[in-house]
Amino acid sequence: MFFARVAVIGVGLIGGSFSLALKEKKLCGHVVGAGRSAANLKTALERGLIDSIAADAAAAANGADLILVSTPVLQFKEIFHSISQHLRPSAIVTDAGSTKRDVVAAARAGLGAKIAQFVPAHPIAGAEHSGAAAANPGLFRGRRVVLTPLKENRKQDVDALAALWSGIGARVSRMTPAEHDEVFAAVSHLPHLLAYALVDDISARANAAQLFGYAAGGFRDFTRIASSHPEMWRDICVANRDRLLHELHLYEKKLKEISQMLETSDAPALEKLFAAARAAREKWLKGGWLNGEYE
Amino acid sequence: MFFARVAVIGVGLIGGSFSLALKEKKLCGHVVGAGRSAANLKTALERGLIDSIAADAAAAANGADLILVSTPVLQFKEIFHSISQHLRPSAIVTDAGSTKRDVVAAARAGLGAKIAQFVPAHPIAGAEHSGAAAANPGLFRGRRVVLTPLKENRKQDVDALAALWSGIGARVSRMTPAEHDEVFAAVSHLPHLLAYALVDDISARANAAQLFGYAAGGFRDFTRIASSHPEMWRDICVANRDRLLHELHLYEKKLKEISQMLETSDAPALEKLFAAARAAREKWLKGGWLNGEYE
Repeated sequence: MFFARVAVIGVGLIGGSFSLALKEKKLCGHVVGAGRSAANLKTALERGLIDSIAADAAAAANGADLILVSTPVLQFKEIFHSISQHLRPSAIVTDAGSTKRDVVAAARAGLGAKIAQFVPAHPIAGAEHSGAAAANPGLFRGRRVVLTPLKENRKQDVDALAALWSGIGARVSRMTPAEHDEVFAAVSHLPHLLAYALVDDISARANAAQLFGYAAGGFRDFTRIASSHPEMWRDICVANRDRLLHELHLYEKKLKEISQMLETSDAPALEKLFAAARAAREKWLKGGWLNGEYE
Repeated sequence: MFFARVAVIGVGLIGGSFSLALKEKKLCGHVVGAGRSAANLKTALERGLIDSIAADAAAAANGADLILVSTPVLQFKEIFHSISQHLRPSAIVTDAGSTKRDVVAAARAGLGAKIAQFVPAHPIAGAEHSGAAAANPGLFRGRRVVLTPLKENRKQDVDALAALWSGIGARVSRMTPAEHDEVFAAVSHLPHLLAYALVDDISARANAAQLFGYAAGGFRDFTRIASSHPEMWRDICVANRDRLLHELHLYEKKLKEISQMLETSDAPALEKLFAAARAAREKWLKGGWLNGEYE
């Protein structure tokens, strides 16, 4: 598979790395970029992430065979709307959003009758840095990409997109948008919320300086995701709030159980829980939870 | 300062690394080790962590100038009791326990009238591996060691111990046992509990394999401390349960606030909290919370 003309709308870490990877593997011809920051687009052009700059999303989409929308999700609806009249009938539109039900809703609203051309995707990759300057062609190597195809999608489009991501080293799997949002609420959105909550809790104390003064490696790793982008995580939390609230309530229930163990000094129950958690995590690190269904 | 004869009771990662570091800096003469595992003591002797093996804690303490008790904390009371009749009047006894009020209580019960000789200490260092085989002389370099001196202690003993830890590269500070347990409940014990809780929560689900299948780098770092030693953390949690319960309740309150923000889709409040947490963490990473008092 080869896409002669690719449009990347939002040439940041994800969009720029996608473009670089396609170029490296010779899976695309010309890449045109669009975005709100002229300085970032200039960097993208200078670094060879893109071959040209379009005036806006509509101009970028015009004549493209593949369009990746990789801006913050809140801009999606407007972008989908603006490109809808400029799509070639054979073009595939995809995205890189971290939530999927809201993205699908935005695409239905923006693309209207052309919704069949949109194949939603979520590449599970991020890094400490962002923007075109941080893009690198190896970002998706070995990382998961989840496609959440729509019933309207053409099978060959979904297969082509899956092959493209595989072609740049990603591990592609498929699920429904609802299933996606449920899974990521548990293993990604909740941990982010918990890490933010702990740092916020501690930094508001009168003795915050003392507390941070004794925080060590365990605290650093536990809270690493509390250094994530606040606007992006605000949007993810709001978009996936029902599933996230469900996860949060399950977690609060678990904390109540642990509270009870502490209140009664139930050492065997604490040890059992800790040992089970450690065993589950070690099994995960060794790939022991994997099975064919999710590979 | 120089200790001609050092006894290390419990020659694991901490005790063994302490001994190696003293030897490297020529701060000690003969090191005698004692412990429950003959195989571990043999490794310690072969690796040069210790120079001889004593039959038990009492024999090790006999004639020693410095005695480090670095076994699991639950063994402390018995060890203190067994060494109490074998202490030279000038000997300093110290420890490496992660909690301090319970250790002080065990020392008072075990050492009786000789409590003045015990200077409690907590080196903030750990690693993925344990035992004599994992010991290394650089373990404490740049790490904090908290001394929690008792009113009975001789000033010169506390100063000598502080100088010794500084001599092997540690950053030494002092606080009361109660203050120590309060600080570490917040920045260490609570995060461990939260990480264990999340892994336990997820691993008990019917779709645990699917969830772990999509857990990525953020989850891995957040839960790293859930791979910690279950028995050790059971003991820490039980020993410090009152402070830990206090921290857990503050955290539950914070989660309730966040729940409320999600329920009302209060995007600005979520963003504000995330941004404040990120800023506090970045400030911490850059050393911005440090001041003279805690250095």
